[in-house]
Amino acid sequence: MKKEFSVQTHSTSELIDITQEVEKAVAACKVKDGICAIYIPHTTACVCINENADPSVQSDIRNTLDKLIPRDAGYDHAEGNSDAHVKASIIGSSRIILIESGRLLLGRWQGIYFCEFDGPRKRKVILKVLGS
Amino acid sequence: MKKEFSVQTHSTSELIDITQEVEKAVAACKVKDGICAIYIPHTTACVCINENADPSVQSDIRNTLDKLIPRDAGYDHAEGNSDAHVKASIIGSSRIILIESGRLLLGRWQGIYFCEFDGPRKRKVILKVLGS
Amino acid sequence: MKKEFSVQTHSTSELIDITQEVEKAVAACKVKDGICAIYIPHTTACVCINENADPSVQSDIRNTLDKLIPRDAGYDHAEGNSDAHVKASIIGSSRIILIESGRLLLGRWQGIYFCEFDGPRKRKVILKVLGS
Repeated sequence: MKKEFSVQTHSTSELIDITQEVEKAVAACKVKDGICAIYIPHTTACVCINENADPSVQSDIRNTLDKLIPRDAGYDHAEGNSDAHVKASIIGSSRIILIESGRLLLGRWQGIYFCEFDGPRKRKVILKVLGS
Repeated sequence: MKKEFSVQTHSTSELIDITQEVEKAVAACKVKDGICAIYIPHTTACVCINENADPSVQSDIRNTLDKLIPRDAGYDHAEGNSDAHVKASIIGSSRIILIESGRLLLGRWQGIYFCEFDGPRKRKVILKVLGS
Repeated sequence: MKKEFSVQTHSTSELIDITQEVEKAVAACKVKDGICAIYIPHTTACVCINENADPSVQSDIRNTLDKLIPRDAGYDHAEGNSDAHVKASIIGSSRIILIESGRLLLGRWQGIYFCEFDGPRKRKVILKVLGS
């Protein structure tokens, strides 16, 4: 079953906690035992799972990626957002979350993050839930 | 259902657009609603999703990775291709694409790329399509 | 079907070959044709697939990541393990392995590695096997 929702970012580089939206979408699918594939249909955005307790973890992720892959570093691509394409390719456009007893099987400290590296933008997150 | 096809690379580091091959394989499976798992059974190669409009995005990805993880950087592994193992481990050997109405649910600017970092080689891409 | 097992790490940064544990768990599921989703429910750990022949590949992966994302680099997060969160986010908390004839469809040189970047810790690996 497919589900989707929108995400609005407000700066160039941003991580947004989408755990609740994913949980709601999975609950609506009524699948008790299976997997949820999260897919980002954009080329400067991606999805990752990380700590949801301290927001500074998200800024550390953004800052570290910005240091490693700077916005301006003499790229070939003329649109000025090559760093965002590289970051999104490395982190990846998909993640799998397990579903058990109808709920996301996340670790105690884990949240699901939509990551944009060329915002602000209105973006889409698509989910597919498989199982029974 | 399992499908596979071959890819031939022609240089050390290369990204090859495999979107059409994946689309063809998925169409042959006649699954309308599900997921396609793409798997690369090699240790110096991997798969990523990125922009398919401007080829310079692919060269930017290759060049950025080469700067971050140089070919010669005093690695322990004696075969001289440790950079390729690291790059492939970071980007990852698998990606999930969603299938809706029998077609790959890719974003408008997205293509699927086979990435080799220790070519030229003849390589294999394996797909598994799940759904109904 | 869900399976899980524990992993004990002994140093800050460690890659542990979990191929046999995953193979055993998949065999117990009696699924002949499908996928195995591997999921790490921790925020400083992740999973990757790489060469299992020469252990120096694993130390090269660890050392390269430590050079790129040093343990101490003026992070915002106060717990002193931000590097581990960043590394785990980049490599990723999930991988998909294909199952064919009841066996993991790994490449000849591939092994599955649990990666911890803030050990030593006792950790959990969770698998979900889908198929028939």
